This record gives sequence, C-alpha cells and structure tokens, in this order.
Amino acid sequence: MTMTATGTTTATTEAALRQERFDRGMETLTRVDGEGGQRVVEALADINPELAHQVVAWGFGDVYSRPELAPRDRQLVTLGMLTALGGCEPQLEVHLNAALNVGLTPVEITEALLHAAVYCGFPKALNATFVAKKVFAERGLLPVTPA
Amino acid sequence: MTMTATGTTTATTEAALRQERFDRGMETLTRVDGEGGQRVVEALADINPELAHQVVAWGFGDVYSRPELAPRDRQLVTLGMLTALGGCEPQLEVHLNAALNVGLTPVEITEALLHAAVYCGFPKALNATFVAKKVFAERGLLPVTPA
Amino acid sequence: MTMTATGTTTATTEAALRQERFDRGMETLTRVDGEGGQRVVEALADINPELAHQVVAWGFGDVYSRPELAPRDRQLVTLGMLTALGGCEPQLEVHLNAALNVGLTPVEITEALLHAAVYCGFPKALNATFVAKKVFAERGLLPVTPA
Amino acid sequence: MTMTATGTTTATTEAALRQERFDRGMETLTRVDGEGGQRVVEALADINPELAHQVVAWGFGDVYSRPELAPRDRQLVTLGMLTALGGCEPQLEVHLNAALNVGLTPVEITEALLHAAVYCGFPKALNATFVAKKVFAERGLLPVTPA
Amino acid sequence: MTMTATGTTTATTEAALRQERFDRGMETLTRVDGEGGQRVVEALADINPELAHQVVAWGFGDVYSRPELAPRDRQLVTLGMLTALGGCEPQLEVHLNAALNVGLTPVEITEALLHAAVYCGFPKALNATFVAKKVFAERGLLPVTPA
Amino acid sequence: MTMTATGTTTATTEAALRQERFDRGMETLTRVDGEGGQRVVEALADINPELAHQVVAWGFGDVYSRPELAPRDRQLVTLGMLTALGGCEPQLEVHLNAALNVGLTPVEITEALLHAAVYCGFPKALNATFVAKKVFAERGLLPVTPA
Repeated sequence: MTMTATGTTTATTEAALRQERFDRGMETLTRVDGEGGQRVVEALADINPELAHQVVAWGFGDVYSRPELAPRDRQLVTLGMLTALGGCEPQLEVHLNAALNVGLTPVEITEALLHAAVYCGFPKALNATFVAKKVFAERGLLPVTPA
Repeated sequence: MTMTATGTTTATTEAALRQERFDRGMETLTRVDGEGGQRVVEALADINPELAHQVVAWGFGDVYSRPELAPRDRQLVTLGMLTALGGCEPQLEVHLNAALNVGLTPVEITEALLHAAVYCGFPKALNATFVAKKVFAERGLLPVTPA
Repeated sequence: MTMTATGTTTATTEAALRQERFDRGMETLTRVDGEGGQRVVEALADINPELAHQVVAWGFGDVYSRPELAPRDRQLVTLGMLTALGGCEPQLEVHLNAALNVGLTPVEITEALLHAAVYCGFPKALNATFVAKKVFAERGLLPVTPA
Repeated sequence: MTMTATGTTTATTEAALRQERFDRGMETLTRVDGEGGQRVVEALADINPELAHQVVAWGFGDVYSRPELAPRDRQLVTLGMLTALGGCEPQLEVHLNAALNVGLTPVEITEALLHAAVYCGFPKALNATFVAKKVFAERGLLPVTPA
Repeated sequence: MTMTATGTTTATTEAALRQERFDRGMETLTRVDGEGGQRVVEALADINPELAHQVVAWGFGDVYSRPELAPRDRQLVTLGMLTALGGCEPQLEVHLNAALNVGLTPVEITEALLHAAVYCGFPKALNATFVAKKVFAERGLLPVTPA
Repeated sequence: MTMTATGTTTATTEAALRQERFDRGMETLTRVDGEGGQRVVEALADINPELAHQVVAWGFGDVYSRPELAPRDRQLVTLGMLTALGGCEPQLEVHLNAALNVGLTPVEITEALLHAAVYCGFPKALNATFVAKKVFAERGLLPVTPA
C-alpha cells in the first residue's frame, strides 16, 4: 500500500476504495431493489451524480450491506418509515418490490400497512396501500388473500 | 344470547357485531363522504379488504358516529389535519366534498385554508386550496365570492 | 391624507397602519388566547421582535380577525393542524386554552382529539391529549365526563 | 342469541363484545408493551377514556392481535414509523421496550435506527437513538456491542 | 392624512396601504419567482383570492422584501424547508426557478440537495432532485457538471 | 498498494480509509459545530457507535467537506430543514451555534426564522426561534438589534 510520509493514503487508493464501496452497494441495490433501484441511479446521472453515488455507496454499500439486520427486517422498517413520511410514493414503489424480493409475503406487507394505520392514521396507510396495489398488480399478486 | 360457560360470546355473535359496526360505519360514510368514500372501500377490496373494513367499521362506525362532536365540526378538524399532514390530496378531495355535504359553506372552507397558512405555511395551504378548486369546480361552486 | 406625487402614502401613514394592524391583532389575540398569547409575544421581544409583530399583526390582525369563519371554527381547524404537525406542544397549550375561551366544551375538544387518531394515528393524538390534560387540570376541568 | 326482530343484536350484547375486544387488547398490550402501555391507559382515564378504550380495543385488540404479521415484525414497522414521524419520544420509549420484549436484540434495534438515518436523515435517527439509550440503560443493556 | 378623532386611519387609507403592500409584494414576487409566481396568484383568483393577496402582500411584500437577509440566502433556506416538508413539488418548482433567478448556480443547488439527504434522508432529497431535473431541463442546464 | 488478485483492496487499506474519512469529518465537525458536535458523538459511544461513525465520516467527511457549497450556505439550508422537520430542537441548538461559527449574523439567522414562518407556519418558526433565544443568550448575543 502506498502511503505518503504523513500516513495519508494516496488519491489513487481513495478513488479505488470509493469505487469499491459503490460496487458493493450496487450489488446490494440490484439484489434488493432490482431494476427500480438502477433506474433511480441512471435518472440522477445528469442532474446529481454525486447523490446517486452516495445512495449506492453509502446507503447500500456502507449501511444496507451490514449483517446486523436481515434484509427482510430492513424492508419492514423501511415500509414503516416511507408510509409515515408521506409523499414518498416513488420510493415506496421501489421498496414494495424490494420487500417482495427479500421474502416478505403480500399478506405480511398489507398487514404491515393496516398496522401503519394505527400509528400514522388512515390517510397515509391508504396512500401506501394504493402504491402496493399498483406493485402487486404488476407482479400478478392480486387479489391478496388472507393466510 | 349464546354464551360459553366462561361468558365469552360465540364467534357467530362476534361476526354479527363486526358486521353491524361495518353497516353503521357504511351508513355514516355514505351520508358524509358520498360516493368518494365508497370508491375508496371498493378500491381496497383486492389489495387490503381488512383495511377497508377498519376504515368503515372503526373510523366511521365507532368514532365518526359518536354524537360528542357534530359532523360539521369533525370536518373542520379533518380539513386542518389533512392540510397539515401534506401529501393527502386524495383524502382532501373526499373530505372537501364531505365538508360541503355536512353544511360548511365554500367561504368557510376557503377561509379555513387561509387560516391554515398561518399555522402550516403557504405551501401546504396552497396544495389544499388547489384540491378545493377541483372539488368546487366539479360542483359548480366557482367563483367563491366573499359573504 | 398625505400622498406623494406618485400616489405613495407616506412612511408616517405606513407606520400608523402597521401599528393599527398590530393593535387589532393584539385585541384578537388577547381575547382568544388570553395571557398565553401575550407571553409568547413578550418572550420574542429580545430575539425576534419582527416575528412577534407578524404573529400579532398578520396572524391575528389580518387573518384571525376576518369574519368569514367563526372563532370557534378556527380553533377546531387549529387543533387539527397542531395535532397533525406534531412537536407543537407549546402552541397546543395556548390553543387548547383558546378553544375553551371561544366556547368549545371539554367533551368536544377531547372528542376532536379522538377523531384525530383516525387521521393522524394514536401517537400524535396521545401527545395532544396529554397537553389537554395539563390545560384542563389547570382550569379545574378534570375529569372530563361524557355529555 | 337474543336478536331483535330486525336482526340487530341487543345493547347488552354490544357492550359485552366491546368489553371483550378491550380485554383481548389489554392482554396483547400487557404482553407486548408491559407496564408502559398500562400507564398510558391509566393516564387517559380522566381526560379521554374513550381514546384509551380505542387504543386498547382497536389498536391492540382488533389490529395488533391479528396473526397475519408476527409481533417482532410489527415492532420493526413501528420503530420505523415512530422514528420517521418525529416528536413521538414517549411512544418510542414504550415501543423500544416492546421491541425488546418480543425478541428484537439490542444490536438489531440500533442497526434499525442506523438504517433509519438513510431514509429519515440523521436528526430523527439521533432522536430515536437517544430514547433507545435511555431504555437500554434502564434495562442494563449498555454498552451495545456488535454481534 | 385624514384621521378620525381617535387617530384611526380611514378605510380609504387602509385600502390604499393594503394595495401598496400587494404592489410591493408583486414586484418582489415577479423579480424572484418570475412567471411561476404570477401563475399561482392567477390560479387562486376564483377559489381563494384572499389567500393570493396574502401570499403576495404578506409573504413577498412584508417578509421577503426585507433587507435583513439577501434574496439568495432566502432561497437556500426555502429549498431546505420545501425539501424537508415533502409533498411541496409545485412550490419547489417555483422556488428552484427562483433560486436560479437570484444567482444560485446549478452546482450549488444540486449540492444543497445532496446536503439535504444528510438531514432529511434520501427519499425527500430524491424527490426534490427530480423536480430540479425538470426545471433545469426546461432551462437547458443539463447536464450539471461539477465546478 | 496491496491488491488481491481480484483487485480488491485489503481489509487493512479499507480500515485505514474508513479512519481517514472519519478524521476528515471530525475536523470539519469540530470546526463547524464546535463542542456540540463532539458531545453528540461521545453520547452515542455506548448505544450506537456506528451511527456516530457515519454522522462524522459520511455526513461531515464525505458530504459537508465538499467545496461545492460554502459552509455558510450549508447552514442556511440546514436551518431551513431543521425548522421544517420539527421536533429537532437538539440538532437546531448545535446548528444555530454552527451558523454563528461560520459567519451568519444574529440578524440573518432571526430573519431566516421569520422567513420560515411563511413556508412552515408560525408554530415551527416559533419553536426554532426559542432555541435561537437559548443559544444567543449563552453567547451573550441578546437582544438582537436590527442592522
């Protein structure tokens, strides 16, 4: 490893690590979010490529890739957050697909959104549910039938 | 009334009561929200029927039907909440119709949204006002003229 | 009235009108919010006196004083907004007092907060309710007994 | 079962069912939230007993008791929602205890709050984390050490 | 200046001052927001003309016109607020144009939105960034290239 | 630089870079936020050290340290966001100190909070202003006198 006299890694090394964090994030992003995640990254290329880099390298490479919380559990937390925040329908669409990708069942997801009504109220629970309807329809998962 | 030895009502009774709460809620929902409310319930049938049931049975049957607060007053509180929450334009559309249905005048409604600017800021007040413009236009209530 | 050649009112007139709007607002503020409102204005004197001026002159003088919506109705909208916004406990305290001052009953207020649970979820309804408990206790209004 | 001629259950039956839903909710509430939940119910007795009833009978009896989503999963969704909503520190305190009660580990919980930073930003993640610090300290769970 | 015996300015004077505040605000609004701001005012004419008046006379005439904070600085604060509030895409569109009009560069704006991710999380930063993409595309400012 | 056959940097290099990003962030954090920022990091040590690391290494090392937006401008955006989010009084306290540290004047800050009333409403503007009052009092900056 090339180090300067002061122990600082070179710019070359830093760039390599930056790319590695991005690559690791992209792998996680693609596995979890599928094409939806990649489309977001591509859509940012001409307006805010650094934001795209950070979504991937930090959000997915540094945080999401950590083993301390299972991917399925991360999606449950994320569904809760996006429903509560409101106005995040595009992100909900990506993450409802992600939730299905990592093993949550349609019944668990719709039950999570019913549960959300208790804490966030009906309007936000309804908004999230209508995004789920769109996603589930695209994947041929309607009607959702109780277990 | 059939009771088990331990005083628990039977599942049959429970189902009957569940239906009654729903029926009472549906009556209130239809009277207040009109077709808008029914469309929401129908739209939920294939994705989250239990959420639809709870909106009707709990939201309208258990809470909204209570006489402690007049329907007109409930809509004033609701307009305030939906404006403040943000991102609830579909629910605002239903409840602006409801507000008119229970006797609020167009002038009172638009004044409530001006009042909302003081507490929520202009952006949320404007968002709600443009939903009102759509609802009032559909009902032939434009222009709104001061009292 | 002294006008410049271009029809602009003088600075003196503008200052007089600014003061009048403030005075009208202060009268409304005091009638509605009582001491709570005045304390807010005083507390702002050394940090942001212009914000204090605008709360009074604009919020109360220009908006709240308008006859298009009754004071009682304004408080219903306001309770809805402050409950939904969250984190506005100091303002809720002032406005729960205001709500009582303009004629809302304790039962109507607590019912409005139950109603809020349907739209904002339990956590925000509970936060607002515990502020009401403090205000009602101070005014000797506990326990609240159903009509 | 005593039914009126029109098929309506009697008020007695309705009251019994209302109590049953409450009892079922209280059982779930106590198992999940422990004393924290009960204290909330008691604190509401003089200000809004109907809100307390609905938190228990609806929130816990009707929704939380449903088997469609595991208790551990419900807490993950709830931690996400309460962190995102902001200003819900009292509820977070109850539900962080609940999260531990239903089997989430301290590492999973703190990782969920790190994950929350990606979606809600650092300020809300920090606010929730400092509530966790209080709860974990009370239960002798500090320091949290990585798996 | 015509004053009544009690020192109250006449209604005529009040109306003149009200118009002046509006005119001053309209000048600021047009300079900062351009056509976008005027379109909002026009769109309100039949539904809530008083809200339009207050946006202009108070928001722009009384507050925005004050010299205590530079127009460029006001837009930075505003971009932060609108991104954080969420659901304010129409207002963001107006104010992203305003930000460019008062001298913020595309790089500064996109960096502000990356900065927003740290405090508001990625979903809200992404929502704001996609509005910026629309505005910048309309003004021929894509791709945004680092300084 | 030691690379594995597959081009992956070694764990040693990765750890060194991770530490460098942290060090760079800590330098920025200390310069901008002063002791307030460091206290937050220390308070997280036993509950969520990885969150502390990411606040510093990512928030300050990767994002805040970028030259594309001046420190003063970042604080204006941040004040807007924290005021709009609500419930972030601890973070506002840190960042109001930061705002003063990077050259914003007390008048500019209080004007920014008046400006915030237009977009977020009075309650959130007041909450932020009372945090400013606390910070300014500690630094001997009261009363704030207009320029």
